[in-house]
Amino acid sequence: MTGERVGAIGEQALIRAIRARIAAGPHDGVLLGPGDDAALLACAAPLAWTLDCVTAGVDWFPDRTPAEAIGHRAAVVNLSDLAAMGATPKWLLLGLELDPATPVATILRGIDGLVAAASAAGAAVVGGDVGFRSGPDAWTATALGAALGMPLRRDAARPGDRVWLVGPVGLAGLGLATLQRDDLNAPSWQERALSAHFWPRPRVSAGIALAATGQRTAAIDVSDGLLLDAERVAEASGVRLTLDVDPTPWFDDDARREAETGGFDWRAAIAAGGDDYALLVTAAADRDVAQESGVEACWPVGRVLAGAGVELRVAGEAYLGPSGGYLHGGSRLVGDGGSR
Amino acid sequence: MTGERVGAIGEQALIRAIRARIAAGPHDGVLLGPGDDAALLACAAPLAWTLDCVTAGVDWFPDRTPAEAIGHRAAVVNLSDLAAMGATPKWLLLGLELDPATPVATILRGIDGLVAAASAAGAAVVGGDVGFRSGPDAWTATALGAALGMPLRRDAARPGDRVWLVGPVGLAGLGLATLQRDDLNAPSWQERALSAHFWPRPRVSAGIALAATGQRTAAIDVSDGLLLDAERVAEASGVRLTLDVDPTPWFDDDARREAETGGFDWRAAIAAGGDDYALLVTAAADRDVAQESGVEACWPVGRVLAGAGVELRVAGEAYLGPSGGYLHGGSRLVGDGGSR
Repeated sequence: MTGERVGAIGEQALIRAIRARIAAGPHDGVLLGPGDDAALLACAAPLAWTLDCVTAGVDWFPDRTPAEAIGHRAAVVNLSDLAAMGATPKWLLLGLELDPATPVATILRGIDGLVAAASAAGAAVVGGDVGFRSGPDAWTATALGAALGMPLRRDAARPGDRVWLVGPVGLAGLGLATLQRDDLNAPSWQERALSAHFWPRPRVSAGIALAATGQRTAAIDVSDGLLLDAERVAEASGVRLTLDVDPTPWFDDDARREAETGGFDWRAAIAAGGDDYALLVTAAADRDVAQESGVEACWPVGRVLAGAGVELRVAGEAYLGPSGGYLHGGSRLVGDGGSR
Repeated sequence: MTGERVGAIGEQALIRAIRARIAAGPHDGVLLGPGDDAALLACAAPLAWTLDCVTAGVDWFPDRTPAEAIGHRAAVVNLSDLAAMGATPKWLLLGLELDPATPVATILRGIDGLVAAASAAGAAVVGGDVGFRSGPDAWTATALGAALGMPLRRDAARPGDRVWLVGPVGLAGLGLATLQRDDLNAPSWQERALSAHFWPRPRVSAGIALAATGQRTAAIDVSDGLLLDAERVAEASGVRLTLDVDPTPWFDDDARREAETGGFDWRAAIAAGGDDYALLVTAAADRDVAQESGVEACWPVGRVLAGAGVELRVAGEAYLGPSGGYLHGGSRLVGDGGSR
């Protein structure tokens, strides 16, 4: 069956095959899983709820992306939103809008990637919807999390706060650029970059740990590029951010030289590349977010000031390109990208 | 701005315009609405959760469907799933995957239809996602409801139960057929049929009332056709259903004669037409579901027996066509339809 196209086996057979892959026995809070009109969930906490869609040709290469990475991405874009609220992921639903010509095996491998990413974050896939129409495949997932601590809102940055980065940025964009050029000339950093592009990690445990402190913390997940997402925090909080990012911990001098030799704009990737799913966090100046988040890959990168807008230096040099420059020029494959 | 295309105004401007239309002030349980990484919701009850997608060319006619009816449909397919679980609708998220050439006005009028349908059911739209790519527009909504009573599961039918229909079936299919032919020859019934197609009503209050009885009740919403959805209940419950539907209350002898004269297969529409969003309900034989549901348009239509499968008579005559016959031949515009 997996050698066939989804339009040939039809909706019911595809749903049965998908269900067999997501049914992983009883799961915390799942009163009723797939197979009825809706899932039934036990809930006694405030909830964080998000929805995000990834699309063929925009978010992945139909001809170059491992099928498992499609479902992985559909899960991670949502799990990362929960992480940026400090919520504990609990459940996901999946909506598939498929071209009938898509191979069944692609979908089922994608489901495996989705379930693996959800499981790694402690969440269960509890249902969804499948439909066919001509056009690029779209995977829309929605995720619910328990917001047990103090939520990490975008509007909570205050002048005097320090700014932290949880996880590297720029690698996913450089991985994408590598794929677009089909030019693997410096495996020392490009293999890490490809891995960052295909298999981004949502910063779930860091978000939960920061929410659990019960202290005012602003956070956003860096999905559309550091500069653009920093601008969103600045706007929502009514403050100015000055950032000075030293990428040495994840992209050292050697890597930068190799990237430049290969014609890769690593500075633009760090400033404006998307899809790394790092967290950008602000907290009172006397707090140690690296220690609180429990994440080694966590660095202070700037200050919150009164005012508006974002000033960004990368490796000591002011970045003056557009916030969506690398994003719209390269980080998305086509179109204007999604909102996440 | 509403005269422009969505690709021309871009994601941020479109999101701002959408937000202005869904922000309706404080709403029950909404701790944080649109604008952050996720919505935050207060929750202290079991939840029913569903996701459903509608697509241009499959679920509506880009050239003939009022734009408000697109959003109405995106809400109703989800609200109807909650109704079929007996849950009280609380919140919705919306994911839009849009062709850049779609007029902004179409999207904003669709949002108005979505918000109106959600409000009519007591639910609030609390966020979503927007993305652009070439292809048919897709509106994916997900809805959460409070499952306060005894959920109306598909697998709860027992031999000896009576079967009830809450709301008419077949009208939406006949409305669709009218549109497909562009042939309005018998306004007496066709105008009602067009209204049923464009503006289906989810049976929310009936579902809530039936769940509140605390008694074993099976239910499914009739979205893919009476026969197919009855088969789903029979399969999930391990029983046989015999149904004898008298459509006189909503499609009388005069209408049937007119339909036949016009070449419309009203019998197939009742047996296998989709998108009416009636509820098919089973309950112990001594219960009066019409009285319990508080819905006047509620009729006993059959019995649950030991065995398997569904036997369906329409206006006294056995229906022997395929369960998905009218559905796949006409009720959906193209393709194999969605799972709802």
